[in-house]
Amino acid sequence: MKENRRLIFVSNDDGYQARGFAAAVEVAREFGDVIAVAPLTPQSGRSQAVTMYEPLFLELQHEEEGLQIYSFSGTPVDCVKVAFDHLLVDRKVDLVISGINHGSNAGINVLYSGTMGAAIEGSFYGCPAVGLSLTDHSPDANFEAAKHYAREIISAVLANPVEQGGRLCLNVNVPDIDPLDIKGVRVCRQCRGIWREEFYPHLNPQGKRYFWLSGAFDNYEPDCEQTDEWALANGYVAVVPVQIDMTAYERMDYLERILK
Amino acid sequence: MKENRRLIFVSNDDGYQARGFAAAVEVAREFGDVIAVAPLTPQSGRSQAVTMYEPLFLELQHEEEGLQIYSFSGTPVDCVKVAFDHLLVDRKVDLVISGINHGSNAGINVLYSGTMGAAIEGSFYGCPAVGLSLTDHSPDANFEAAKHYAREIISAVLANPVEQGGRLCLNVNVPDIDPLDIKGVRVCRQCRGIWREEFYPHLNPQGKRYFWLSGAFDNYEPDCEQTDEWALANGYVAVVPVQIDMTAYERMDYLERILK
Repeated sequence: MKENRRLIFVSNDDGYQARGFAAAVEVAREFGDVIAVAPLTPQSGRSQAVTMYEPLFLELQHEEEGLQIYSFSGTPVDCVKVAFDHLLVDRKVDLVISGINHGSNAGINVLYSGTMGAAIEGSFYGCPAVGLSLTDHSPDANFEAAKHYAREIISAVLANPVEQGGRLCLNVNVPDIDPLDIKGVRVCRQCRGIWREEFYPHLNPQGKRYFWLSGAFDNYEPDCEQTDEWALANGYVAVVPVQIDMTAYERMDYLERILK
Repeated sequence: MKENRRLIFVSNDDGYQARGFAAAVEVAREFGDVIAVAPLTPQSGRSQAVTMYEPLFLELQHEEEGLQIYSFSGTPVDCVKVAFDHLLVDRKVDLVISGINHGSNAGINVLYSGTMGAAIEGSFYGCPAVGLSLTDHSPDANFEAAKHYAREIISAVLANPVEQGGRLCLNVNVPDIDPLDIKGVRVCRQCRGIWREEFYPHLNPQGKRYFWLSGAFDNYEPDCEQTDEWALANGYVAVVPVQIDMTAYERMDYLERILK
């Protein structure tokens, strides 16, 4: 790879064979050389998980001028870690892209999403990170609008480096509507609300009861125009900047009182 | 179970056979009846992960007056979801306890921790949640100090209910020192710093290269007395209140500018 080209790292959670991953790689190549490490198997819902109890295998799946695609048998975060610790040592990485996810990662999905797990992890290595998701779970989803807005947002991120030591991680969600009907990009905050899971029991052919995860998002503030869920429901691309301090500062005084 | 007794839900990430889990159940029983669902197998580092692609199996492992312990073949968050959606429907749960974890969940570990994944998930169901960890990974760790401080903190939480609709989730870490040397409890914020992972390659007996996760915590602010890492290093039990809004509010203006 040429030294003067930008270097983009790409990962995802749907696995290296997903169409959304190919779409992300396609966009990334417009901005520079690409090294990609994506999970061997689908890893949706894997959050920030790492694999501690198993050895993991890295395979070069595809190579051409300016592009290397590896599969890794771990989680999305494992993919990012092995890339930066093994493949990208002493390389300057200009950007991390994770996605394009088949399905929304707006609202509280940011906590559960393997796509955002990889984006957040990537942002720890001194380069901006963009998680990209399309609110359409289907394997044959149309990624044209997502690619278009990915290009726009990535161009802006690369043209405006953050301050030294600063971290930038974006959760970008694109609505599953006709690309021409998308009204533009909105900077949002994470919508409040939780998943109400449903674990219906069924019986397997051997008569043993099993549970399989389902559920529905319970939006606590459907009418709030500041949220990513509102933006998506109203035809906008939602961009939420993501941080990783989970401290509930507003609870500290209360705790000081009750723990005295 | 008696209707007038408190009901405590217990989970963990080390699995239902871990000694730290038995310690948590022991403490929980002092406060009320206990229903516990813990992973069938160790799930350290599983974060907020959910299992989307596999059926999961729930087994009653132990039952006596005031106590039911189930194993579930999924992640810690799966355990919480199946409990609240299946076992605890229409029951008032007074408290969720997750742990006691074998190993620290201070600092950025809160993002990767299955113990804290379960505690955070539990806090979504309208009851306070306490994640408990001891900074000792060994299977034969001494949980006496952790149990003592768990009792103290749980008593305070149960005696001081948060406001209607409020959420309380605590990340409690107990230092691995002589219980008599512990100086007390400190309310802290999450320490800044990241894991620098090391994925050394090795060869398996068939000559195939594998990677196995290792790493070291890179503390960005070792001298800051407000952090959980400082508290632990200086002989205190660290209590961090945890929230789940990942929005980087301070980045929103910057994004508005660059995305115009």
